[in-house]
Amino acid sequence: MFEPKIYKDRRVKLTNKLGKGIVLFLGNSLLPIDYKANTYPFNQDDSFRYYFGINEPGFAAVMDLDTGDEILFGKEHSINDKIWSRDLYELPEVAELSGVCKTKNISELKSFLSKGKQPNRLVHHVSYDRADNKCLINELLGSYTASIKLTKAIIEQRSAKSEEEIFEIEEAISTAGTIFKIAKSSAIPGIKESDILNRMLYETAMAETKPSFQPIVTVHGETLHNDTYNNTLKKNDLLLIDFGIYSKEGYCSDNTRTYSVGEDFLPEQKDIYSLVLQAQLDAISAVRPGIRNLDVHKRACLSITEGLINLKIMKGNPHDAVETGAHALFFPHGIGHMLGLNTHDMESFGEDLIGYGKEMERSSQFGLSSLRLARELKEGFVITIEPGIYFIPQLIDLWESEGKHKDFINYDKVAKFRNFGGIRIEDDVLVTNSGSRVLGKPIPK
Amino acid sequence: MFEPKIYKDRRVKLTNKLGKGIVLFLGNSLLPIDYKANTYPFNQDDSFRYYFGINEPGFAAVMDLDTGDEILFGKEHSINDKIWSRDLYELPEVAELSGVCKTKNISELKSFLSKGKQPNRLVHHVSYDRADNKCLINELLGSYTASIKLTKAIIEQRSAKSEEEIFEIEEAISTAGTIFKIAKSSAIPGIKESDILNRMLYETAMAETKPSFQPIVTVHGETLHNDTYNNTLKKNDLLLIDFGIYSKEGYCSDNTRTYSVGEDFLPEQKDIYSLVLQAQLDAISAVRPGIRNLDVHKRACLSITEGLINLKIMKGNPHDAVETGAHALFFPHGIGHMLGLNTHDMESFGEDLIGYGKEMERSSQFGLSSLRLARELKEGFVITIEPGIYFIPQLIDLWESEGKHKDFINYDKVAKFRNFGGIRIEDDVLVTNSGSRVLGKPIPK
Repeated sequence: MFEPKIYKDRRVKLTNKLGKGIVLFLGNSLLPIDYKANTYPFNQDDSFRYYFGINEPGFAAVMDLDTGDEILFGKEHSINDKIWSRDLYELPEVAELSGVCKTKNISELKSFLSKGKQPNRLVHHVSYDRADNKCLINELLGSYTASIKLTKAIIEQRSAKSEEEIFEIEEAISTAGTIFKIAKSSAIPGIKESDILNRMLYETAMAETKPSFQPIVTVHGETLHNDTYNNTLKKNDLLLIDFGIYSKEGYCSDNTRTYSVGEDFLPEQKDIYSLVLQAQLDAISAVRPGIRNLDVHKRACLSITEGLINLKIMKGNPHDAVETGAHALFFPHGIGHMLGLNTHDMESFGEDLIGYGKEMERSSQFGLSSLRLARELKEGFVITIEPGIYFIPQLIDLWESEGKHKDFINYDKVAKFRNFGGIRIEDDVLVTNSGSRVLGKPIPK
Repeated sequence: MFEPKIYKDRRVKLTNKLGKGIVLFLGNSLLPIDYKANTYPFNQDDSFRYYFGINEPGFAAVMDLDTGDEILFGKEHSINDKIWSRDLYELPEVAELSGVCKTKNISELKSFLSKGKQPNRLVHHVSYDRADNKCLINELLGSYTASIKLTKAIIEQRSAKSEEEIFEIEEAISTAGTIFKIAKSSAIPGIKESDILNRMLYETAMAETKPSFQPIVTVHGETLHNDTYNNTLKKNDLLLIDFGIYSKEGYCSDNTRTYSVGEDFLPEQKDIYSLVLQAQLDAISAVRPGIRNLDVHKRACLSITEGLINLKIMKGNPHDAVETGAHALFFPHGIGHMLGLNTHDMESFGEDLIGYGKEMERSSQFGLSSLRLARELKEGFVITIEPGIYFIPQLIDLWESEGKHKDFINYDKVAKFRNFGGIRIEDDVLVTNSGSRVLGKPIPK
């Protein structure tokens, strides 16, 4: 945990943005895999961790905006608990670490929040993607209506990262970098994707952390969410690795590298790799406070399109191609997302609320519709910049059969790249007061 | 998956035990860790897997007991799904593997089950410990009332393991055995518990499987549910490892071994180890069809008590000591549980329903109250036999301060074992037609 002052200050800032009522934060519980005693590894709720720091199951917290009271609800352990489990916390000690003065047994939470005890008071809470938390809110409050006011205040606060948060993200990236290095050196012909994954997971565990999302380790980078690891690496395969870990305080890293298997890239791989890298550098250069991330995305699209026109895979005016979405045959996803205590930071609040806000609307155009973050960037935001070029046989066949964007795409030339695979390069970027900074010890690209 | 016939036969057997109505089986979905796109590793619902075999998220199945219709509900994939994910199944192909003829899109499940389409019909379902499944049942049916009739029929059927199920459990044990061997050879002074765990997890992943529960790897075996791994092994420590994995078809192994760190057991460790081993062998010898598992448990308690009396740690009449529960200071848990597609097989239906049935009631006596399985054993049951002896400082202090069972316990002698730790030995045992058989390639003990 950080110093108690950090959590206290965060709560003061939040309180100052809100009006009256009560704020309820749920900490996460352990989730049964199949039965109650067999649970998935614990992950704390990100907002609870942000405001209270505690990384243990079974807590909740209440902030009374009118009286200024803060109460941490947790378990008071019995002798029986102590026989069965080790290193159990004492509730007041944990509260002190959060900078909270009052504690109550978690069993009292429902009665504390009841209409009898809190007549005519509004209880603010965020929205949750975990079903158990949704159910718990319903059970505690008799209804489930996430507070937009609270959510927006949290988004504003958590979007701008403080020094200690940036330090955590950089630590995670640097540790992940050492694991990328090991993965790269393991990428030799005859090895299975799963062998590389297992080695990476072992190194991650030995670094006393865990992945912040299901890693992608694949010679089929063109399948964007590839979570199978059955292929054996062959010479000249492209190996795409998308991987991140948690820092000590729960902040995520998220990087992608694409390696050649066995030796250097083939000439056509080098061509495409250079385009992706140029697009990434162009997008990073575009990042600064005040620019919309939509325009950072479009900068990468333009860069990719210009490059593909040079290679005669695309044709026509690059600006027009980007506006009509022709490039999305090769780059069908968004340039990136916010990064913090979640890999897609705060996404459980709702993707559009995080990435578009009130002032913007998500496009329905293929490709652009997958852009998670479009709104104006501000100092302190940490975002991923992750362009890619992919040759997706099913999509090529579909578009060609429909004659889609044939003024911008040379389908004859595309056919030669049908089995190319995919290349993505991803780094984590801080929006500084005048531009941007790539975070962490550089991971070779 | 097994042959389709196996799943079909299982469903026919189940149908024959039930009356009228509809049976609804939910397959599991992917659970968000924090937001929807970031999920925990998938684990299929055990009953769904038992009757349909499918090990992918997003399915459900309906059996119409009146018409004999069986319908598999799953996702019909769009081109967009195929761009983002790989190796997507076609619904009719999967249904064929389950031996099911009819399929429907999962989006139609709610309307299919609606009162309009199924007027006055009873929809049977089991109970779930996963909150998302509870919510889904409520959403689909407008209420959540697990069918006792269905649950009992499933318990009866799943309790007796078939040949192919026993084969699976034995395969899991044999693979786990090779990992125990690696763990034992890693248990040298200076190594951390987490180093051994990480090595075991790596070997498990390389064997293309995963642990069936959170492993225990600890020099503090006296803390029964020990899920921390921070200690460094010292010479003469006792290292307790409780570990199991899934077989290819999802059946669990569950074994415990206690090793000496660095060299042979010290004389007093050998004394206690021998008692635990004798208690385990005595309990295994007692296992046969018709005996209550409560009596198998008591056989182990008696064996432990007699041994501790020999060592002058306990005193008095061993039968009386066991009846009053004095031995539970050293053996505070039950002798074991059923094993199958879950480590605690079918425990989400309710511990008492599985382990006690209608005819027996759970004791409230300390120790005995933790016995998960008490009812009569039948041929084909697979159970764990896992006695242990522990010296738990908090519990010793509590009992001694209360003068509890002082006619049976030599607290002076116990004080000398205060920092001893704990020893447990666990194997998986099949109830045969005349007695029992320890499953799997023997793991040295």
